[in-house]
Amino acid sequence: MFFSINRIALIEEINKCNRIIDIKTPSPSITGILIDVNIDSLSLTSTNTVVSIKSLVRLNEMNLNIKQVGSMLIKGKYFLDILKKMDDDIVNISCVENNVAVLSGKKLEFSLNILDFNEYPNLAFREKGDSINVNCFDLKKALNQTIISVNEWKQKIVLSGLNFALKDGAFYITGTDGYRVSRKRLNFWSTNIENKFETNIPYRSVLEIIKLLPDNGECKIVIVDSYTSIVINNTVFQTTILEGQFPDVNAVFPSDFNTTIFVDNKKFFKLISRADLPNDDNSIPVVNMILEDEKIIIKSSIHQVGSFEETFEEFELKGIDSQSISFNSKYLIDSLKTFETKTLEINLIDSKKPIVISSAEDDSLSQIILPMFTS
Amino acid sequence: MFFSINRIALIEEINKCNRIIDIKTPSPSITGILIDVNIDSLSLTSTNTVVSIKSLVRLNEMNLNIKQVGSMLIKGKYFLDILKKMDDDIVNISCVENNVAVLSGKKLEFSLNILDFNEYPNLAFREKGDSINVNCFDLKKALNQTIISVNEWKQKIVLSGLNFALKDGAFYITGTDGYRVSRKRLNFWSTNIENKFETNIPYRSVLEIIKLLPDNGECKIVIVDSYTSIVINNTVFQTTILEGQFPDVNAVFPSDFNTTIFVDNKKFFKLISRADLPNDDNSIPVVNMILEDEKIIIKSSIHQVGSFEETFEEFELKGIDSQSISFNSKYLIDSLKTFETKTLEINLIDSKKPIVISSAEDDSLSQIILPMFTS
Repeated sequence: MFFSINRIALIEEINKCNRIIDIKTPSPSITGILIDVNIDSLSLTSTNTVVSIKSLVRLNEMNLNIKQVGSMLIKGKYFLDILKKMDDDIVNISCVENNVAVLSGKKLEFSLNILDFNEYPNLAFREKGDSINVNCFDLKKALNQTIISVNEWKQKIVLSGLNFALKDGAFYITGTDGYRVSRKRLNFWSTNIENKFETNIPYRSVLEIIKLLPDNGECKIVIVDSYTSIVINNTVFQTTILEGQFPDVNAVFPSDFNTTIFVDNKKFFKLISRADLPNDDNSIPVVNMILEDEKIIIKSSIHQVGSFEETFEEFELKGIDSQSISFNSKYLIDSLKTFETKTLEINLIDSKKPIVISSAEDDSLSQIILPMFTS
Repeated sequence: MFFSINRIALIEEINKCNRIIDIKTPSPSITGILIDVNIDSLSLTSTNTVVSIKSLVRLNEMNLNIKQVGSMLIKGKYFLDILKKMDDDIVNISCVENNVAVLSGKKLEFSLNILDFNEYPNLAFREKGDSINVNCFDLKKALNQTIISVNEWKQKIVLSGLNFALKDGAFYITGTDGYRVSRKRLNFWSTNIENKFETNIPYRSVLEIIKLLPDNGECKIVIVDSYTSIVINNTVFQTTILEGQFPDVNAVFPSDFNTTIFVDNKKFFKLISRADLPNDDNSIPVVNMILEDEKIIIKSSIHQVGSFEETFEEFELKGIDSQSISFNSKYLIDSLKTFETKTLEINLIDSKKPIVISSAEDDSLSQIILPMFTS
């Protein structure tokens, strides 16, 4: 094999593939990136046990010039390191005697040992099936807003990832660990408006999708059997899915509230951050919020460290003006961080019912938190 | 005790003291920061086994207002975390019943457990003795340029830090691990031009001084007995010193060279970086530099990884035009990084003698590297 290509573009493609590789895997061939050079295109493929990536570059894209077809299995980390240190715009890459890759520029040449591509698994990529298109930036934001409620190590497997559900013309991404729920509605485009599907994406795959998504353009989400793929431009990202029935979280969403508190997002976030007392053993303080006499009093304490109390008056109120409710401070802080709006609404029923955090400025996002029962 | 002070300024002072604290020390009191409030000033003190810091704030500086004198020993990390999350410009700090510190702002109050200040050691700070004044930014740069040749774990204790020497009207900072030498001459001001001293500062203390030095202003270096202090504005930084006789590196500095190669700093650095082949077991490749036929050929290899070769023609030459010499690539890269000048001079004698890297644009810095003998 022998081809030349734009160095910067190749770095980006190898980066995508390299990120998912698990270098601790017992089979050395799986730690490699497979480069396949055909007559009219070049593809780069990598995998770990859960996700696989394939990037396709066609002739003349990224200055690709193919002189001889063939395959080789490279160590992505070495290639990246070397390509980044080179100055040449175009690099020539060839394979010599099936065991050495030669990278060359105008005045320099690297000879690198490679892996045996015959040992590489035959990966099938699924790009056709039920699909919808979404905006890449919106999807990235939605994943970041919902992943906060997911516990990767949850015993109930289906909860250890995010639920993607298209139903009744709405597309929702939902995460829950049983104590809190993050739900986001996302705009989408589909040629088939009768479309309906549901899939559960593992936690680690979600993190990889977030890294892979660019800040603009569209991507396609494809659901096939026991896989879900995200097609972003020339790249297919494919993940296995989590088996099981995701709980119907819509059923637990309260809708009638006794009290709604309207607060400035930033100010309320800073207030709750202060209640999150520092400590050396990862204790998470319980935050007690008391609403009385047109004031909010926030209290927290950790036995070894000390205590905190602050009076907050910058809010508006609808409904019952006397409440006392306690939360895990981390859950509350995580939830507040996901909102980009200027104001927030904290919706309460009583001290034992879940609260819903939302914003009238953007009704696509809701965060639910179960309160803690304190003496 | 009871005082109020500018919050942002207090964060900065606590930060200085907190950085050196070793939280793993067996005595809990040593992990604290001692706050002493007197009638007209407040001081913050911290220590580990090697270095100690004391910062003094006088009445009205940093909005300091003293209401009641006293001492307390705080956990710096907790105080920093809380002060950073507050919004108030001025914070009130008091000590209640000798075991709780109260930090308060306009609408909030933190109560924090503190340590027993009676257990804190009595530290003596030495600010008078043989001293010179230097520019803070220049000193910071000089320490960064010379620390590269120091091996913290060197068996010969005196080599495990930097040598500060004032002699014959010149002030030099020198580091060496026996395979390379970094030497920097620094401008200084002294009221006593007959001044002469020598001291050896431990590696870790050098790192702390680098962090503490601001980018402008002057500081005073004070040598007293078995301590060296750096006085920066209101802060005294004191370190123990390394015992032993630092080698006379000036004696090993070659002065007559057979060949001098003039190169562009950035281009030559990138060239040598490319020769530093990637690998998984922290192998450091040997770089072979061959000068022949008006070209420089750079070669390197690591058995498991592969090899590199590049031809370099962008240089000027003085002296013998045929040389072949080999180096540890890491030593060469570390040395090249310390130069900020546009051009560099690589001065050679032969394949067995140390090379000297320098620059005519700034003759205060010299880096020496011993070559490696290869078959």
